[in-house]
This record gives sequence, C-alpha cells and structure tokens, in this order.
Amino acid sequence: MSIKDTSDEEARERLIELAAQFYDQFAAGEIPHLDLPTRTKTNIEYDPQKKVWVYGDRTSTRSANSVGGARKLLKASYAVEFLANQLDENRSSTLRELYYLSESWDNDEAQFNSQDESNGLIEDLEIATGVTREDFHMRPEESGAKVMGPLKLREQTRRGDRDIHCQDDVGQGGYQIPNDPDTIEFLDNDADFVMCVETGGMRDRLVENGFDDEYNCLVVHLGGQPARATRRLTKRLHDELDLPVVVFCDGDPWSYRIYGSVAYGSIKSAHLSEYLATPEADYVGIRPQDIVDYDLPTDPLADSDINALESELEDPRFQSEFWEEQIELQLDIGKKAEQQALASRGLDFVTDTYLPERLEEMGIL
Amino acid sequence: MSIKDTSDEEARERLIELAAQFYDQFAAGEIPHLDLPTRTKTNIEYDPQKKVWVYGDRTSTRSANSVGGARKLLKASYAVEFLANQLDENRSSTLRELYYLSESWDNDEAQFNSQDESNGLIEDLEIATGVTREDFHMRPEESGAKVMGPLKLREQTRRGDRDIHCQDDVGQGGYQIPNDPDTIEFLDNDADFVMCVETGGMRDRLVENGFDDEYNCLVVHLGGQPARATRRLTKRLHDELDLPVVVFCDGDPWSYRIYGSVAYGSIKSAHLSEYLATPEADYVGIRPQDIVDYDLPTDPLADSDINALESELEDPRFQSEFWEEQIELQLDIGKKAEQQALASRGLDFVTDTYLPERLEEMGIL
Repeated sequence: MSIKDTSDEEARERLIELAAQFYDQFAAGEIPHLDLPTRTKTNIEYDPQKKVWVYGDRTSTRSANSVGGARKLLKASYAVEFLANQLDENRSSTLRELYYLSESWDNDEAQFNSQDESNGLIEDLEIATGVTREDFHMRPEESGAKVMGPLKLREQTRRGDRDIHCQDDVGQGGYQIPNDPDTIEFLDNDADFVMCVETGGMRDRLVENGFDDEYNCLVVHLGGQPARATRRLTKRLHDELDLPVVVFCDGDPWSYRIYGSVAYGSIKSAHLSEYLATPEADYVGIRPQDIVDYDLPTDPLADSDINALESELEDPRFQSEFWEEQIELQLDIGKKAEQQALASRGLDFVTDTYLPERLEEMGIL
Repeated sequence: MSIKDTSDEEARERLIELAAQFYDQFAAGEIPHLDLPTRTKTNIEYDPQKKVWVYGDRTSTRSANSVGGARKLLKASYAVEFLANQLDENRSSTLRELYYLSESWDNDEAQFNSQDESNGLIEDLEIATGVTREDFHMRPEESGAKVMGPLKLREQTRRGDRDIHCQDDVGQGGYQIPNDPDTIEFLDNDADFVMCVETGGMRDRLVENGFDDEYNCLVVHLGGQPARATRRLTKRLHDELDLPVVVFCDGDPWSYRIYGSVAYGSIKSAHLSEYLATPEADYVGIRPQDIVDYDLPTDPLADSDINALESELEDPRFQSEFWEEQIELQLDIGKKAEQQALASRGLDFVTDTYLPERLEEMGIL
C-alpha cells in the first residue's frame, strides 16, 4: 500500500476499517488475524521504479490462534480506539505516552509490557492501514533538528500560521523542524541545494562561515541518526523544490548508516521509504579516501566499527562500486575520522576548500 | 575571581596577562606555575552570601618542574595564543575543533592527546582568567534546547539583530537557544514564571495543551542534562526579569542531578556558579512521594540508581530536609518514575491537575 499524506478523517476511517476487518473475520467464523511483511534485512528489496528499498514478499501473521497472538490483536484494538478518539478530538501524543496510557485501559490484558511493544504495534498499524504515525498524530520523543538557509516557509501551528524565513527570522540556532513537517508549506526560496550535516559542531561552523549564504545552501542539521521529521522534510525539499541533496557526516560506519537512512530508508520503516527516503541524496564525506588524501587526524577502528563495516558490505543498500571501494579502503587503513577533524587544516578549510572542491566534483556547484 | 560578561577586548587582555605571568615568572628566575582550585566534590562549599556552591581553599598547582607539568603550561600558552587571535578576528570555534586544531600547531609537544585534555585546559583558563568559555568564543557541541512562552527578545546574530516573540514568531518547535545566550536582550514579556522541563515529550505535551499560554509560563526545554547556554538563560530570566524558576524532571537520581545543575551548579564548573546557577530554582517533581500518592507506573531502581541516590545523600548540595526525606523514601520503595508516566491518568492530568495543584502548593500560582 502506498503511503501519502492522509487527512485526519481518512486516517480515522482506515483505523476503523482495520477493526471492522477483525469483526468480519469473527463473524465469518474465521480466527482473527493480520498479515504483515516481515521486517528484517533479508526481506527488503530494491524497487527500481520507486528507486527505494521496500519489503519483499515474506509475511508474518499475527493470529488469535494462540494466547500470545490473541493478546496482540486485543492490544491493537485498544490502540485503534485510542487513536481514532485522538484524531476525532484533534489531539496528539508521544509514543511514550501511549505506552503509559495503556495502564489506564479497562482491560489489564491490553496493557503494554514495554515501550518496544507499543512502538512495534504502531509500526504494524502504519503498515496495515497505509497511514503514517504522524497522521495518527503520534509524535516522536523529540527531534531537535533545525534548518538554516534561504528558504521562506509557512508552518501551520495549533495557534495559527507562522511565516518564517530560515535566515532572516531566526536566531543563530536556526529554524526548529516541527514533529510533523507536513504542516509546512514552502513559500519562496533562493536555494541551490540542501546539505544535511551530522554534527552540531560542523553545522555551527558552516553557519558561522556563512556557507548557507555564500552557496545558497539549506543547511539541515541531522543531530546524529535523523528523526523521521528531518528525513521527511529533506525529501520534501528535494521533491517539491527540485533541490539536489547531499549528506555530510563523520567518516565511520555509523555515519554511513545515517547517510543510508536519509537516502535509502531504514529496515524498520521500509514501508515508509517512499515517504521518507531521498534516493537521489549523495554522500559528500568524510570518505575513507579523504583520510588518506588530507592526512586527517584519526582514531583506530574498534571491533564494533569493523563488524559494522563488514555488515554494510553485506547490506544490499550499500552494494555499489563507490561504497565497496570506500569500505574496503577503510578496513584496510583501519582508521576513522570525524567531520571536525578537517579543523586540523584550519577553521576555514572546510568551507573554503574541502566542500567547494568536492561539491564541484559531484556536479552540485 | 568573580565571573561576568566580558568584552572581547577584555577577554583578550586577560588571556595575554596570563601568558605575561608565565613570562614574569621566567624572568624572575622562578619555575613557571599556575595555581588552581581543586575541582572535586570534597572541595566545594556553600557561599551563603552568593547563595551558590563555590570551590573551597584546596588548590592544585600546574608547574613546569616536571616534563608533564611543563607540557601542560606549553599547551596552555598555545591555547592562549589561539584564543587571543580568535577574539581578535571575531571568530569562534567548538571545543572539538580546538582539539583537532592543535594538530596544526608547529610544536608537536603542544598537541592535545584527547579532547578531555583540551576541555580541561579551557576550564583551567576560565578559572585563571575569570573569563567564561563563551567569552573566549568557544562554542559547545550543541544545545538543542528551546523556549516557548510570552517573551519577546532580541538576539544579536552575526547577520544582524533579530526580534523574536517566543510564541508568535516561532513554529511549534519554539525558539532555539543560541550557544551564547548573552547575545540576547529581553524586550518585553507577560510571563509569571519559568518552568524548565527535562524531556521533549513533556515539553511538547505542555505546549500542545497550551500551558505556556494559560499560565503565562516560559517553558524551557532542558533536553536532558542542560547545556551551559540553557542554564545561563534560565539564570538571566530569573535575575533580570525577576521570574520564579521551577524545574520539572523525571523521578530518578539522574534527574535530581539535572535539577541540581540548574539550581546549584556543577562540580566541574563551580567557578561559574554565580554565572550559571539559579539557587532560587525549586523542584516541582516527579517526587518519590508522587509515585506513592498518584500510584504512577514505575521501574525498579537499578544498582546504579541506588548508588547515585546514596551519593546524593552525601552531597552537600542535597543536604536539606526535603531532599533527605524524598531520597530516603525512594530508596525505601525501590522505584522510579518518568514525567510522562503521568499520562497513565490521561493526557491532560499533568496540565489540568498535577501542575496547577503543585504550583499552588509551592506558592507559584
């Protein structure tokens, strides 16, 4: 099922349809059940048409033919009721609140045992209904990500619309991305490209050096593994404003995963790849080749780094000539480097030399 | 030495005076050295006049009478030169960049071996010069904290002044606190008090429920252990706008430390207590007594929690009747609870019942 922005009314209907499906199964004398794609690395495949990774054909079934399975469907039914009411009242809540709220439900069997369980259930409901968590009005814990650059937008808040220019109307900290970026409308922009930046330190360096201004760049601060809101906004900037997207991270396997989650989506949310992933996003660096070429200060790879790199070599999403070469090189030199290590060549090296040269090579500048 | 907002010129002069002090020691035939207060829990004491915790009389000496000590002073001299130039050029940098930058220094002996070492040196320089890190233009990695509420401010940015109302001119995400909040001037406000909130989930709950609007409250999102920028802004809101400050956290020993760092300052930055701490800040909750009174969903205390609580009982900053009673109670019941656990009584319980009742008890409402 394709996922797109859904109205509150539509989201509510889809949830109720799901509950109705259980009812109909009961009525027809069937054991109630729900089929869902298996969410593991071995069950994701590349969809060449949509250019994103999606779930394959393997499915898992939640069925009431066991006590455990019946309890899962009971919890799903309670969650459906809660979400339908939440949409009806135009409220929202966090995933963590849902977990705690279940303690107030009138059936002890419907209470969640852990937040992993309630989070997993919300993913199930997303897949079963084709509605995103955001459109159920479920908020993540926090994002903290922010944008700086030549973009004017309108955010629809609970207190009315706010028109904000992401350079002229914000402080040094930039524009804070809201939990649901589909409340944003793009009004006007002078941007040539989008650069997603992993660390706050590098984001501040680019802003201090006026990189966003000089190169008409929208600097999106990822803040580590990016929240869904940040990935969704990045995708919208690419699709709706036709802007190239590049990702600038540390040079280690965890950072390649950050790039991967922007470009390819994640395994846990492959049902949302079309909504969250920007397959055209390119990787700026830090590349293992940069460690060699620029003689950057490094740390040795830890065992966990080596394992992560080896697992990436097996990951279908990283099977390209570029990534195989870079990962093999990194295993070979046994080193990793951070973005801020570019400061070993002076504070302006990154904005005067490294980025302009690399972005020209990549055809962005 | 008392720490307050320092101009760039003054900060630069104080750094150069420090270097001159080494020079004079050399010239007088003394071994160059630097005396600094010992920065441990056993060397902080309460200053009843300033109402904050400051360092006691015990000092440690960095002296060039050993190779290790000489190297420390060499590094300090290089760092002084870098910072003086940075101030001269009106640039800034992160602590992490300083660590990497040292690789470009012309003396290998002056390079830092780890970021802990360069961070520690910056603390030494703060104490020795009486100038804050912010006034050296050293930025922290990131803060991510934000404000929502009836406050209009002017932030002086590198691109000019920005006038921002922290409800009307920001999106749902609020106003992002800049790295140096002394660039902020308070223009106008309708606020009755400030509430610092630990988690993003609870911050979003308060904003969604319109708590800031209904109670004229400035909601400051701490985002876990608060950055110095967040503590500094909180103190300024208290001192300059004469607003009471309350802190709302999870009910566990780590959260009490978060409260402690807002109210009492931290051991590592006791030299900055006057600049960062708000001793009048009160603790709203979650209190162990709340776990009992409201029958909140809990997790059992882990061994590390128990150790942390016991260490707090020994901490001079927590030696009050209130904290001793609450910590003893928590050790007794063996449980902890999160702020969002209040959702087990419904999404509005926190804003309709818990906070109004508690704040009235505390004399804030």
